[in-house]
Amino acid sequence: MTSKTPTPSEHLPGHGLPEQHLREERIGSEDIYGGNFIRLKRDTVRLPDGHIATREYVVHPGAVVVVPMLDDGRIVMERQYRYPVQQVMTEFPAGKLDAGEDPLVCGQRELIEETGYSAREWAKAGIMHLAVGYSDEIIHIYFARGLTLGDRQLDQGEFVDVITARPDEIMAWCRDGTISDAKSLSCTLWLQNVLSGAWSLDWKPTKEGGGAAPSVA
Amino acid sequence: MTSKTPTPSEHLPGHGLPEQHLREERIGSEDIYGGNFIRLKRDTVRLPDGHIATREYVVHPGAVVVVPMLDDGRIVMERQYRYPVQQVMTEFPAGKLDAGEDPLVCGQRELIEETGYSAREWAKAGIMHLAVGYSDEIIHIYFARGLTLGDRQLDQGEFVDVITARPDEIMAWCRDGTISDAKSLSCTLWLQNVLSGAWSLDWKPTKEGGGAAPSVA
Repeated sequence: MTSKTPTPSEHLPGHGLPEQHLREERIGSEDIYGGNFIRLKRDTVRLPDGHIATREYVVHPGAVVVVPMLDDGRIVMERQYRYPVQQVMTEFPAGKLDAGEDPLVCGQRELIEETGYSAREWAKAGIMHLAVGYSDEIIHIYFARGLTLGDRQLDQGEFVDVITARPDEIMAWCRDGTISDAKSLSCTLWLQNVLSGAWSLDWKPTKEGGGAAPSVA
Repeated sequence: MTSKTPTPSEHLPGHGLPEQHLREERIGSEDIYGGNFIRLKRDTVRLPDGHIATREYVVHPGAVVVVPMLDDGRIVMERQYRYPVQQVMTEFPAGKLDAGEDPLVCGQRELIEETGYSAREWAKAGIMHLAVGYSDEIIHIYFARGLTLGDRQLDQGEFVDVITARPDEIMAWCRDGTISDAKSLSCTLWLQNVLSGAWSLDWKPTKEGGGAAPSVA
């Protein structure tokens, strides 16, 4: 259908713009697939013009990604084979939330499990929505510093290489396609602006006995 | 399982690192869901250690996202309700590839359909993989400039607001969470580095009669 020529409007700040003419209303919901890993839902929705449509999407528990900064300025990253894209990807450490898990605790757990590092300080940067067209996944972005290397504890069937890289190397890899994972590109936007001083972080010390501390046998 | 403490290695450039110890080999594949929008596959794979596992993932046709730059320095973005995350999202214009469609032609088509803009020049920036854990989606990133506003042609059932914003506004929105869409955060990494001159683009004029030109009745 042809619609009126849009007039790009001067933008009101943040979420202050009207939304009602864009919103879709749920009128039904069914589980259509529950696999080992992926859960799929199909909802029936009423569109802004009153028409009915269906929306299929992945139901995801949410995740955390961590930008771990070593004292010498290098950044800890991972290389992991990602079957859906049939490639080894270079990524920031990340993992799914356990049921009811606090995102910070998840970040601390995943960092030590996958890389062996625990951190003296953590900062919440922000969040991202990974695949808004077909997934409800939200990823919490954390920075970690004051890193100490211990033993890692990969899950059964996990194969992950840990690497370190200078920020300028990471920028070059984002540009040349060596890093193409969207959550890692998004984290690099944060990294660049945190390192330049444009975006500040609110660092907090890791709590004594918190999820990040390796347990003593 | 407990594994050896990793030694973060000095990084060889780009894709020069060994990968064989990370790769998973397909030994079977089945279609498990084919909906109106989402196609799901479940493959059986052999892990690097010889164990067998399953991998479920969304099969996606691929997509294009466009960073459209107006002559006055403002950027064209969209606001659209994204049902899976139950929010109106602020995003760069994007759309799925039609079967066999060239990504550039798709970008030109989507830009004019959704925003009404056609561009005199286009540049391919790079690619991203959107959700490497459970989707094969690849998104081609383009920049467009020399924009002219015509009529847009939204698909039936599409409700999209077009807005324009200054780059500094976009940066502030990425920081404060107003922009949280991962593909748009990734594009903002490109935008920031293109505007600073750190990353150059290879601009090409739009072909006469190309997919971008509005048809004359």
